[in-house]
Amino acid sequence: MADLERLSFNQMTAGKASLREVMNACLQSGIQWIGPWRHAIAENPVQWGRDLREAGLRVSSLCRGGMFPAATSEERRKRIDDNLRAIDEAAALGTDLLVLVNGPAPGRDIQGARQMVADGIGAVVSHAEKCGVRLGIEPLHPMFAADRSVIVTMDQANSIAESFSPGTVGLVIDVYHVWWDPRVYDEISRAGERIFGFHVSDWIVPLPDTLMGRGLMGDGVIEIQRLRRAVEQAGYKGPIEVEIFNERLWSQSVSEIATQVAERFLKVV
Amino acid sequence: MADLERLSFNQMTAGKASLREVMNACLQSGIQWIGPWRHAIAENPVQWGRDLREAGLRVSSLCRGGMFPAATSEERRKRIDDNLRAIDEAAALGTDLLVLVNGPAPGRDIQGARQMVADGIGAVVSHAEKCGVRLGIEPLHPMFAADRSVIVTMDQANSIAESFSPGTVGLVIDVYHVWWDPRVYDEISRAGERIFGFHVSDWIVPLPDTLMGRGLMGDGVIEIQRLRRAVEQAGYKGPIEVEIFNERLWSQSVSEIATQVAERFLKVV
Repeated sequence: MADLERLSFNQMTAGKASLREVMNACLQSGIQWIGPWRHAIAENPVQWGRDLREAGLRVSSLCRGGMFPAATSEERRKRIDDNLRAIDEAAALGTDLLVLVNGPAPGRDIQGARQMVADGIGAVVSHAEKCGVRLGIEPLHPMFAADRSVIVTMDQANSIAESFSPGTVGLVIDVYHVWWDPRVYDEISRAGERIFGFHVSDWIVPLPDTLMGRGLMGDGVIEIQRLRRAVEQAGYKGPIEVEIFNERLWSQSVSEIATQVAERFLKVV
Repeated sequence: MADLERLSFNQMTAGKASLREVMNACLQSGIQWIGPWRHAIAENPVQWGRDLREAGLRVSSLCRGGMFPAATSEERRKRIDDNLRAIDEAAALGTDLLVLVNGPAPGRDIQGARQMVADGIGAVVSHAEKCGVRLGIEPLHPMFAADRSVIVTMDQANSIAESFSPGTVGLVIDVYHVWWDPRVYDEISRAGERIFGFHVSDWIVPLPDTLMGRGLMGDGVIEIQRLRRAVEQAGYKGPIEVEIFNERLWSQSVSEIATQVAERFLKVV
């Protein structure tokens, strides 16, 4: 069971269950890492950080900052302020990684929105450095280009990250979002020490739903082990986070979900 | 109305309507080009070619060949034979363009399947040249990587095309499939004279369905005019094909569909 040491359970894999329930299910299943979302800890990140640590859990990342593109400079300023708060929350919680999901374009100008992402990261990076929080750009699958993230390839994420210090801005690589990319292995090598996080799930055929149709590892077509080997060869030794949005999975109890996640992790990741 | 000269009506935009109905609707709406599918003309492509020409319509392309990857060499051979037949059908119909949609991987090895596509095209290219039929590789959106096409970027399509003569193997660029790509304008320039076809529709937010959720031009977020200008600057002067899979659109009469397509084409393409 040594390998379970690498497994992190992203809170959203248990759907709308409370962070307390997720915490308990992780402990019961031998899972040692947890990935909370901001809505769950924002009221008291210091207390949550203490509770999780005292229970024996480590926090792999905080989801999520980002969402930089907006139609007006005032709104973009608000998004930047929100990211400064997210950085503070990550530091208070006791994790050194904030995941950035970078948002859609406010209109049809996707290239302009991509520049807003680079500018937004530039506006918060010094605060992140001061707080000891790394910013992990997560490229989303291109099917989310219109509604969730104008950053849709590892090439884009690497290019933005490379304009900042390697210890501060890097990538969160989720196999569901990048497995299709003909350049995925080249971009993993290129990212190297900038790989801050690695997320696993699977791509079911036929896809039940773009957002809510992710599968448990082993239920789809992604070469998960090959991708894991590639990120490890590139130098990544951190937690491997399971993040699955799937209504059918969510209909089960949190402990059933955690048990299955641990089993699949040992078997196919 | 001069600009309608460029509009081609892909048969599937009218769903399950017969090619005869589509032909008549095009004539009524002042549409001068048509894009048939193989199932509609395969029984008698020569006769269909004659009927379409005599009605005053030109054929922009035949959909579709491709689907090269398969688990066994015998099955791959069958796919190649089918492409040879598709080339014959295109020539008999009187079009010089066969659209290639290249199929999913037979297993999890997407890289291996991509090689099968290049090999498959290599196996049919001399027959295509002999018949005067060009092969247009259509990269599909990455959300189809698991079930319809392992070719999901213009970079891939350009790379494969470049290993063949520019007059024989090129690209069919569909805005729905490529609009998200950060490299789209660079790859359009790169394709240049290899742009054999240009398809338009729109990306609705939220997306109703991956396959059946395409919108009429103007109903979504794609910068269609900018993409059209780019392909024209790259040298493409051919027909602009409207290909929309959408159950809601299909529930209307063929003539209503053709009228809307022509209106939107003049207004927003």
